[in-house]
Amino acid sequence: MHASPPLLPQPLRDDLHLRHDRLRAALEPLGADALILALNTNLIYASGTVMNGWFYLPAEGAPVYFYRRPSNFAAWLPEFETVAVRRPEEIAAHLAAAGRPLPRRLALAGDELPAAEWLRLGTCFPEAELVNGTSAVRGVRAVKAAYEIECMRAGCRQHASVVATFPSFYRRGMTDLDFSIALEHAMRRNGSLGIFRTYGGRMEIFMGSVLAGDNAAAPSVYDFALGGAGMHPTIPIGANRTPLREGQTVMVDLAGNFNGYHSDCSRTYAIGAVPERVREAHNVSIAISEALAREGRSGTPCEALYTLALQLADEAGLAKHFMGYHQQAKFVGHGVGLEINELPVLAARIKGNLESGMILALEPKFVFPGVGPVGVENTYLVTDTGLEKLTLCDEALVTLG
Amino acid sequence: MHASPPLLPQPLRDDLHLRHDRLRAALEPLGADALILALNTNLIYASGTVMNGWFYLPAEGAPVYFYRRPSNFAAWLPEFETVAVRRPEEIAAHLAAAGRPLPRRLALAGDELPAAEWLRLGTCFPEAELVNGTSAVRGVRAVKAAYEIECMRAGCRQHASVVATFPSFYRRGMTDLDFSIALEHAMRRNGSLGIFRTYGGRMEIFMGSVLAGDNAAAPSVYDFALGGAGMHPTIPIGANRTPLREGQTVMVDLAGNFNGYHSDCSRTYAIGAVPERVREAHNVSIAISEALAREGRSGTPCEALYTLALQLADEAGLAKHFMGYHQQAKFVGHGVGLEINELPVLAARIKGNLESGMILALEPKFVFPGVGPVGVENTYLVTDTGLEKLTLCDEALVTLG
Repeated sequence: MHASPPLLPQPLRDDLHLRHDRLRAALEPLGADALILALNTNLIYASGTVMNGWFYLPAEGAPVYFYRRPSNFAAWLPEFETVAVRRPEEIAAHLAAAGRPLPRRLALAGDELPAAEWLRLGTCFPEAELVNGTSAVRGVRAVKAAYEIECMRAGCRQHASVVATFPSFYRRGMTDLDFSIALEHAMRRNGSLGIFRTYGGRMEIFMGSVLAGDNAAAPSVYDFALGGAGMHPTIPIGANRTPLREGQTVMVDLAGNFNGYHSDCSRTYAIGAVPERVREAHNVSIAISEALAREGRSGTPCEALYTLALQLADEAGLAKHFMGYHQQAKFVGHGVGLEINELPVLAARIKGNLESGMILALEPKFVFPGVGPVGVENTYLVTDTGLEKLTLCDEALVTLG
Repeated sequence: MHASPPLLPQPLRDDLHLRHDRLRAALEPLGADALILALNTNLIYASGTVMNGWFYLPAEGAPVYFYRRPSNFAAWLPEFETVAVRRPEEIAAHLAAAGRPLPRRLALAGDELPAAEWLRLGTCFPEAELVNGTSAVRGVRAVKAAYEIECMRAGCRQHASVVATFPSFYRRGMTDLDFSIALEHAMRRNGSLGIFRTYGGRMEIFMGSVLAGDNAAAPSVYDFALGGAGMHPTIPIGANRTPLREGQTVMVDLAGNFNGYHSDCSRTYAIGAVPERVREAHNVSIAISEALAREGRSGTPCEALYTLALQLADEAGLAKHFMGYHQQAKFVGHGVGLEINELPVLAARIKGNLESGMILALEPKFVFPGVGPVGVENTYLVTDTGLEKLTLCDEALVTLG
């Protein structure tokens, strides 16, 4: 017989209670009396693992994991109620048989849940009004629980240790693609799980992007800071076989995923000598990051960090190079977690403040036509007194070759 | 200034007209007078490229590409109507201003389109009844158009040429994960775009799976033929650091994606000597594949191929090893294209017949507790006279080490 899966770690299982409490609290402003989560990322948040099924959380009472697969799912989470089902119609039947009230107002993560599944769950709970709980769930996920912070600290540490080795993979005559492939390989060999999750599913990307020269200025179909044309129209992002030539810069922005949680860390390299003003702009990026990390803490308005970054870029005479050249991204940072692009967004007209336990990437970047991109990106933990940098490795514009 | 993107290739642009005609024909049984596609894979099908926007196809008349990004999208497809928009509400306004009738029954791909977008498009077309067009669109995509077949032929050829080198990457003392990482690297270095698209989005997987020994029998959360426990509960698929030990088998099932279209090809290797009955089962897999390829052609019921595979496995005394051991997958093949798991599915109770131009993967596999998986998988083109194998490379159970 095959072995049972190992129990999920105790600190994770303790954390799940916390997460469920926070999800419950988020139902109140929606007036919802229950939540059902059904897609991988939210199920990982609610259970620590991917399951094929539905996580049912009432506003009052214990949650139930209704699962279709794997067949041994119940062994993962012995202290929670797990129920094997084949179809979502069995959820309501099970609740009714257990004497539990059926929801009158049911929250579903409608920004991502497919329409057909939304409509089907509606017929499973004909008495319930459906409400879109995506923003509420994303808001909860933005503030990391204790074990999540531990995972992200460890992931960022591992990520930074691999990034520190990146310059050693450069060889004269490489293209951006060759360099990207060598670095992806280094990430995998050092524990990256490879998979790169983005919110919304439209921003499909392989392990990240390596952008050299004018490819950094290619108008992107995606909402990433810098895009790149990519190797093929079916995946228009990242390296496009630009030769790494003397006088250019190359930025490496590969996502870490060492334990399900992402880390975000970009570093830039010069190929031989690059213009002094480009070097200076790289230092401005580091200075802006440091200013934002001093300014940001629990209670800081998200918008204030963007305004400050914009102001510092402008004072340095770099406004038109900031966050792109022909097409400029309108943010300077974003939450990071189970997905690379979580809440909050640090941009203009964003309501809301930083909270302790949020984890953010700050990425003040500049693009110079004819040369390439410069700047750094780091992942930070929001605390009551500031932003604590988690991706610690050399930030200087290292010269390759 | 940045360069415009290159025009998409002329044979692709010609193909788009064909694809649009087929989509139009599929609207008729739905009684729909228009279709809107909004997610990446369907947009690639309709345009050859990823765009951020909506593809609008009326049952009568020319299609319109409503795009938000990239800003230079219009340059890609000069012979089609392209309209820059910010919000979906502008679609109806544009059609009305152009004197074009608004749909009364609008098809959307509701099995994947998020509920919030379905509801919003509903408010954009308040007079229209919404119908779920997913099955219709997937049915159209199952039968490849001329240029798609050309792409898939080229992709399968490239994939097979890389698979032929896989044995050279084996080193004594490797785990399945080490081997997987080495082969992923070989795929990338030889042109793989890396990204692996699955229908439905729930079956998240990195580049594919390398399964050794008893990991091949792990009950999977996914609907793949064989799963594997994976390295972490957040991505429970594939290699799990099983040491490649004498007496075991290891199956490599990495997806090809060399031009947007997937190819599917599995090969199995023996680590040193493995039991004779396991070697024989590998040959049974090859024999079943050959029998199905002779039997299958335009008009063959999909179900008939599954029944035949099951019968041949049973006659060989291998029924309980077929398609898994503890948890057995209930199909023997599936369509392949822009996603790895397209229509048709070759399984029991599947209505419908093969059609010329479909592209299928056949994967009759066996799992032996204590030893591992055996079998081959190949990608085939359905023709009027049979199945033409596109992934041509050695199928024997090669011994490594």
